[in-house]
Amino acid sequence: MSFVEDVRWFTAAPTADEPDGPTPQGRVTLVGAGPGDPELLTLRAVKALRGARLVLYDNLVGKEVLRYVPEDAELVYVGKESSRHTLPQESIIDLMVRLARSGRSLVRLKGGDGFIFGRGGEEAQALAEAGIAFDVVPGITAAQGAGACAGIPLTHRDHAATLVFATGHLRANNELSLDWEALARPRQTVVIYMGVGNLATICRELARHGLPTDTPAALVEQASLPSQRCITGTLQDLPQLAEQHAVRSPALIVLGQVVALQPQLMRGMQGLAA
Amino acid sequence: MSFVEDVRWFTAAPTADEPDGPTPQGRVTLVGAGPGDPELLTLRAVKALRGARLVLYDNLVGKEVLRYVPEDAELVYVGKESSRHTLPQESIIDLMVRLARSGRSLVRLKGGDGFIFGRGGEEAQALAEAGIAFDVVPGITAAQGAGACAGIPLTHRDHAATLVFATGHLRANNELSLDWEALARPRQTVVIYMGVGNLATICRELARHGLPTDTPAALVEQASLPSQRCITGTLQDLPQLAEQHAVRSPALIVLGQVVALQPQLMRGMQGLAA
Repeated sequence: MSFVEDVRWFTAAPTADEPDGPTPQGRVTLVGAGPGDPELLTLRAVKALRGARLVLYDNLVGKEVLRYVPEDAELVYVGKESSRHTLPQESIIDLMVRLARSGRSLVRLKGGDGFIFGRGGEEAQALAEAGIAFDVVPGITAAQGAGACAGIPLTHRDHAATLVFATGHLRANNELSLDWEALARPRQTVVIYMGVGNLATICRELARHGLPTDTPAALVEQASLPSQRCITGTLQDLPQLAEQHAVRSPALIVLGQVVALQPQLMRGMQGLAA
Repeated sequence: MSFVEDVRWFTAAPTADEPDGPTPQGRVTLVGAGPGDPELLTLRAVKALRGARLVLYDNLVGKEVLRYVPEDAELVYVGKESSRHTLPQESIIDLMVRLARSGRSLVRLKGGDGFIFGRGGEEAQALAEAGIAFDVVPGITAAQGAGACAGIPLTHRDHAATLVFATGHLRANNELSLDWEALARPRQTVVIYMGVGNLATICRELARHGLPTDTPAALVEQASLPSQRCITGTLQDLPQLAEQHAVRSPALIVLGQVVALQPQLMRGMQGLAA
């Protein structure tokens, strides 16, 4: 496969098989790449990658996942760093529409599940508006990867009747858009994506809105990858722990009583006495 | 593969390869089977199924998924109907512990993701307490299957900053345990699992707690399967629509502005003019 490192250098090469008719339009397959471990891809995602001629991917896509793309397919990195998150979304959509109109089918590969904080909704909507046909392949989202691989059940009849996913990155106005009152309610598990950069604010606001400071809390970095780390503490000491352990993005914040089960479950997953 | 239709007729056959030593303990692999479409299994789930000698599965597991189990493996149905949901959980755990102690490794296969309303947490905890080693393989949960296959983005920057999963089945005291105030908040997508039987109550309570009655709402039945149906309306008319269309469990209730995108996205997924 050939890596195309920058979109600016990428020019569409329309298939010109039918010079006499109008170019048939390409189709876009929006594929969730899962949390990073390539074994957590779905069969349908692998099928889409294996059949791809052209793949547009983000920086949240695990490197191992790209091995399923054929040697001679084109790989275009359109990835956005979390710090400049709002920048190239429109250009990515424009590029997809332009490529599809020029007759090229493509796979749009996103970390996790594209419909859960992956902007897959915006991309699907833009494609539909532009009259481009598309498919959607769901993926294991980071919270599921963290749950399964770090030993945190996301729901549990004794501890959490509700599961809440929120996002902790800043909006255009530099403010967090979180609904603190909703997140601070009891008997739920809260998973905050992209929140490590604002961890101190998040923990302070949740405490201020009534979430007990001794609520079990975890940071799961690089969920599902060999480099995964899970650091557990409480709402109170999580910011300090993050600093001590130099936790870096991408990492999830997990809050709720289910986190208290993590050490026991992790021992069970590691084979206990084995 | 041999189907064992009832647990009562199932007797463990411990492997007796090492008559001289203590029987080595079996290992349990908790596998999420996804929403039903076998292509939505993860590679790791397929690997676990292909290597299985013994599989304990629920009624929420898609039939096609079981094809990955080897011909000569044992399949034990431990499935619970949603109407007698609380019944056999302890017996399932007992059975797993007994089998593992007798030296048999097994796959515990659950619909969706076992850590999202699948009681995987309870089972993992019980295994850890019993000293049985286990692994957890996440699965595409029904909400993700519904989102991708029916065209409902679960989050969207313009419409939903938060995604909430809740469960609508009754507790032991015959009451719904939902946190109505939290579910009625604006700018979120709410997905309620196992709620169709209590749909009228759910919609009434949400409206009473402030969710606008014109909030876009959908019922997704048999998400991801060829028999999938998606019925859209509003919080107000959803119970009537469910009756009209005879919607049956398993079906998800999806509430929020993202549902308004569904018709447009579905047309895009069906290839529009194609």
